[in-house]
Amino acid sequence: MSALIDPDLLFPVEAGARLIARQLYAGVAKLPIISPHGHTDPRWFAENANFSDPAQLLIVPDHYVFRMLFSQGVRLEELGVPSLDGSSVETDGRKIWRRFAENFFLFRGTPTRLWFDYVLSDVFDITEPLSARTADAHYDRIAELLARDEFRPRALFERFNIEAIATTEGALDDLRWHKMIRESGWAGRVVTAYRPDAVIDPDFEGFAANLDQFGEITGCDTGAWRGYLDAHRARRAYFKSFGATSSDHGHATAETANLSDAAAEELFNRIRRGSSEERERRLFRAQMLTEMAKMSLDDGLVLQIHPGSWRNHSPAIYKKFGRDKGFDIPTRTDYVSALKPLLDCVGTEPDLTVIVFTLDETSYARELAPLAGVYPALKLGPAWWFHDSPEGMRRFREMTTETAGFYNTVGFNDDTRAFPSIPARHDIARRVDCAFLARLVAEHRLAESEAHELAQELAYGLAKRAYRL
Amino acid sequence: MSALIDPDLLFPVEAGARLIARQLYAGVAKLPIISPHGHTDPRWFAENANFSDPAQLLIVPDHYVFRMLFSQGVRLEELGVPSLDGSSVETDGRKIWRRFAENFFLFRGTPTRLWFDYVLSDVFDITEPLSARTADAHYDRIAELLARDEFRPRALFERFNIEAIATTEGALDDLRWHKMIRESGWAGRVVTAYRPDAVIDPDFEGFAANLDQFGEITGCDTGAWRGYLDAHRARRAYFKSFGATSSDHGHATAETANLSDAAAEELFNRIRRGSSEERERRLFRAQMLTEMAKMSLDDGLVLQIHPGSWRNHSPAIYKKFGRDKGFDIPTRTDYVSALKPLLDCVGTEPDLTVIVFTLDETSYARELAPLAGVYPALKLGPAWWFHDSPEGMRRFREMTTETAGFYNTVGFNDDTRAFPSIPARHDIARRVDCAFLARLVAEHRLAESEAHELAQELAYGLAKRAYRL
Amino acid sequence: MSALIDPDLLFPVEAGARLIARQLYAGVAKLPIISPHGHTDPRWFAENANFSDPAQLLIVPDHYVFRMLFSQGVRLEELGVPSLDGSSVETDGRKIWRRFAENFFLFRGTPTRLWFDYVLSDVFDITEPLSARTADAHYDRIAELLARDEFRPRALFERFNIEAIATTEGALDDLRWHKMIRESGWAGRVVTAYRPDAVIDPDFEGFAANLDQFGEITGCDTGAWRGYLDAHRARRAYFKSFGATSSDHGHATAETANLSDAAAEELFNRIRRGSSEERERRLFRAQMLTEMAKMSLDDGLVLQIHPGSWRNHSPAIYKKFGRDKGFDIPTRTDYVSALKPLLDCVGTEPDLTVIVFTLDETSYARELAPLAGVYPALKLGPAWWFHDSPEGMRRFREMTTETAGFYNTVGFNDDTRAFPSIPARHDIARRVDCAFLARLVAEHRLAESEAHELAQELAYGLAKRAYRL
Repeated sequence: MSALIDPDLLFPVEAGARLIARQLYAGVAKLPIISPHGHTDPRWFAENANFSDPAQLLIVPDHYVFRMLFSQGVRLEELGVPSLDGSSVETDGRKIWRRFAENFFLFRGTPTRLWFDYVLSDVFDITEPLSARTADAHYDRIAELLARDEFRPRALFERFNIEAIATTEGALDDLRWHKMIRESGWAGRVVTAYRPDAVIDPDFEGFAANLDQFGEITGCDTGAWRGYLDAHRARRAYFKSFGATSSDHGHATAETANLSDAAAEELFNRIRRGSSEERERRLFRAQMLTEMAKMSLDDGLVLQIHPGSWRNHSPAIYKKFGRDKGFDIPTRTDYVSALKPLLDCVGTEPDLTVIVFTLDETSYARELAPLAGVYPALKLGPAWWFHDSPEGMRRFREMTTETAGFYNTVGFNDDTRAFPSIPARHDIARRVDCAFLARLVAEHRLAESEAHELAQELAYGLAKRAYRL
Repeated sequence: MSALIDPDLLFPVEAGARLIARQLYAGVAKLPIISPHGHTDPRWFAENANFSDPAQLLIVPDHYVFRMLFSQGVRLEELGVPSLDGSSVETDGRKIWRRFAENFFLFRGTPTRLWFDYVLSDVFDITEPLSARTADAHYDRIAELLARDEFRPRALFERFNIEAIATTEGALDDLRWHKMIRESGWAGRVVTAYRPDAVIDPDFEGFAANLDQFGEITGCDTGAWRGYLDAHRARRAYFKSFGATSSDHGHATAETANLSDAAAEELFNRIRRGSSEERERRLFRAQMLTEMAKMSLDDGLVLQIHPGSWRNHSPAIYKKFGRDKGFDIPTRTDYVSALKPLLDCVGTEPDLTVIVFTLDETSYARELAPLAGVYPALKLGPAWWFHDSPEGMRRFREMTTETAGFYNTVGFNDDTRAFPSIPARHDIARRVDCAFLARLVAEHRLAESEAHELAQELAYGLAKRAYRL
Repeated sequence: MSALIDPDLLFPVEAGARLIARQLYAGVAKLPIISPHGHTDPRWFAENANFSDPAQLLIVPDHYVFRMLFSQGVRLEELGVPSLDGSSVETDGRKIWRRFAENFFLFRGTPTRLWFDYVLSDVFDITEPLSARTADAHYDRIAELLARDEFRPRALFERFNIEAIATTEGALDDLRWHKMIRESGWAGRVVTAYRPDAVIDPDFEGFAANLDQFGEITGCDTGAWRGYLDAHRARRAYFKSFGATSSDHGHATAETANLSDAAAEELFNRIRRGSSEERERRLFRAQMLTEMAKMSLDDGLVLQIHPGSWRNHSPAIYKKFGRDKGFDIPTRTDYVSALKPLLDCVGTEPDLTVIVFTLDETSYARELAPLAGVYPALKLGPAWWFHDSPEGMRRFREMTTETAGFYNTVGFNDDTRAFPSIPARHDIARRVDCAFLARLVAEHRLAESEAHELAQELAYGLAKRAYRL
């Protein structure tokens, strides 16, 4: 592959199992990338402008990167993270890059280290490890390449062999960039996904105004329950017209509800008037997951639930820098009782797909695998966020496969806004899965021919089918 | 061994450790089976009739099998699972078998796959993997063998080298099949176990009537606390007369209580009148675990606690198909506070044995191993249900041994009604334990001679002694 | 190394990885020991008297040892554990030793077994495994050696190559032994640590009297909030004058609070009058952790939080034998909400060090690594207590490194009162870390040169810097 990434990266150490892993990997390494859930900016592909300097592309927006540096005493200002109050932060990309380079050793043992090495070597053809000594040379090289045509977003998209990628847009988004992509005639498949948190979560900033705007956009009466549901239906259809095959929901918990129509309507009315009851706001979020599932039965969108993150844990950082600054912390998450109302309602529907993610690994073997291993509507999303790492992905397979099998999982999601790292992330997932399969073969739990089939499924087929891409 | 099971199945991949595992396994592979906790039907051994068709024996009653197929869209009706409302289900064994065979790939990576391959090859001497292509031939072969004398229950029991097996009967059972076995003069050791949920759990269907019947059977006044306890004592003695060495309790939680006699009596009176308070019914179940433990001190029955399953999670499936249809889902389970009342009462008694199981693996290292590693009355049951799998059993050893040691565990339970798979289950447990021990030896944490001793204990000795069989 | 400990103990089984581990270990095996948190008795180093008989040194005070024996039916009286009621217990060291030796097999697979073998072979140069057969000879040999000058505490301290060791003393301790050590002119670095549970926890035995004494010792008015805080400041300074670089807190939970000064003062007043409200007493403990953190900002003491143990789980044992008798059981522990008030107050301070430990391994990847991976004030203590074991330490690295990295951890703590086992404990930790690093190298996740640097940090550098020793 490249100077910084060994061809045997992440394969089993024992020679026989390593050989099996190599062969499995050889069969999937070049498969196209299906990226069914992520956060790249559709504007990149719409405008196809060159990326700006290396630090702005690779460091400033990556919360994995700056949270680690911050934990070791580097200030976010020094890393160029924009402040909300307009107080000054570093803007010199080279200085930010140097700060990162001299602290790159902190990432030893983390996936960020592997992704970064992979990007340096595979995207920018760099052969020397990043360090204080090489910082400037690497910066210059990357800056020089980013200015070239073949490093513009669409060119990279094609070079990365991406067959389809989903971005995520809010319910109120006009999808202009997706429109522009479509109108450009470019063949790259960039689809949107429906993320209606801003019009579902009563605690979302500007919720009431959001509902008003939701009504304006759709021409539905979002002052009433039926009109509000119709507005969702309308937006879902609009998103589908830009390729959406899924909706996504970032609730704090996996709580669902299964109210009668009358009770749901009454609840909506209280919420619409601005309920001050935390209990009611929670119940509304819970009910809306079930409503979304019911709409999915009709329109075929895959429902994704991403619960369990305590967002913006530090009020000081939130106040100064805003959301997504590395202060989202996983919490204990229950699924067995939380999902029951939704499952009671639609869990046995074979044509529905609800993909559940977790930040609480204790739920893998205890709750999620047993649930996904019996409810036809339920599938397991891949190891997510902090667990999207070699050990995390290995634990995911070890703790879910024996009860849910492979076929109730949905392949890999990169879930990233770090576009240049997408091949790295998929490659590492493929390697970890091949290593896992190789162990099963070496322990005679699986035939090698089966492992080859499964490697293809895990790298490509399951994601394509589960997300209907 | 056989065509479908490699001799090195589940052994460590590295050659040196694999050799150690092979040697350890060679010392235990042929040991008799002690099956101290399970759900085979004593009628089989009493009547010793031939088993019916392959699907009815191997597929229809196995919830591991049909839950996976159901999760992938196969309807339970197609699998011949009987409906409660009498609506029609598939009765043609061959069709059910074909449906299973064409979906057999779904089980890749699961223990069901290993057990099934083992049964095919070891019990029925089949050499080709099951698939749509081989389905009919395998069905014919198995059907043909099942009709032979040497495939009748007692013959298989002997061929399986079962030294002792425990079935499980409710407190109201007349144990007629056990009686018939005894009177037949057959030498096979089939014992019962006392499972009094129906007369202990106020939420059990028909609880009040059950208590009445409990009184009639025993001649005790089950309208009063003392009479009710006497009825238990009488039934325990009756079960002991049919070989029982244990009682078993499937409460939803591990909650115990330690009420004064007066408080317990008062509680019983409220329960007997049909208490509507969930709190009281819970407290009664909790108190009864402690009462059972106190009786165990007197009569020597080993007390088993199997908590933590949310039974019949899907009301729709429960309504249509009833219990045990794969919709039992593990939940978070506390032991440290839950067991304290019972342990306060009898935990330091060296002559009492309380065996605790869990579906919540997080309790292994945090709660159960520390508790079993100090309370003489407490032992750890093996990895249970969804965790009775290669990875699950490995995690059990890795997370309990360092604190509880090996000698506070009780060997393997197959916990199954799938009689033909019993040798497979014990064999796989022995392999996993030998693999674990081999790693300890290869890492110089244990001498090889000690590992041989331990392999014997884990495969045979611990179960025999802990269950007093 | 020695007859009972293989040179490759705990290294990976595969030859290539084992070779890497050996080389990493060779670079750290002889490094001095930094023991920044433990419970050795400073009197040993002050008086430098010979240790008494082998059983009193190695068995009677070791709760890992007697809890296992007790779990298998050996009575604490037989092991010489002193009773509170003065009832007779075994006092013949040889008899205690024999009882232990004949049950030594129970420790197979436990860290106690490894530590004990290590002590026998490395400290006492014994070459035959302990058993009933060798019990007497080993006892004689150890007794004979303990009588020699070179086995007195200071000689062992020097032989063990301890660069610095911290003991733990209560806030009311006069530190006389530390004074005596200092005045003796001996060069061994034995420092204290500030453990104020007795004057912070309203449920601590004699709390009110403790506060009075706290006032007398410091000359501060501990009847008032400000005086009480000043008393802490004074004692912290006094402890610092005897080398303390840390405080330590053994609360039942990790709960913290962040009250206003006025609210804290009011709460203190209610507590001082003997509040009967559990809620208030909990809140006071919670607030005091934050107060200690604020003092740490001023005086530089490192704050250690050791939550999650249900102390004295058996009332019968507690009544008869008192504290620390092996009946402390881990419980589920929350950190994300519990630590938030303290982190809101001081979490982003780069000059503060708060080291958090856990007995709940589920918090490693879910809560602690994400928290320590972003808050500059927070570091992760090593695998603790029941988890200070080869599998436990491996899990710690596997579950924390990918999110927190290595540099947000603090090296190894032995946390022991078993002085002779200190080299064993550090050696085993170094081996486990080298094995983990070797795997990363063998899987090409880390360069070998980096692993050498990290091995040094994990064995020595991180502890020295984090604890400011």
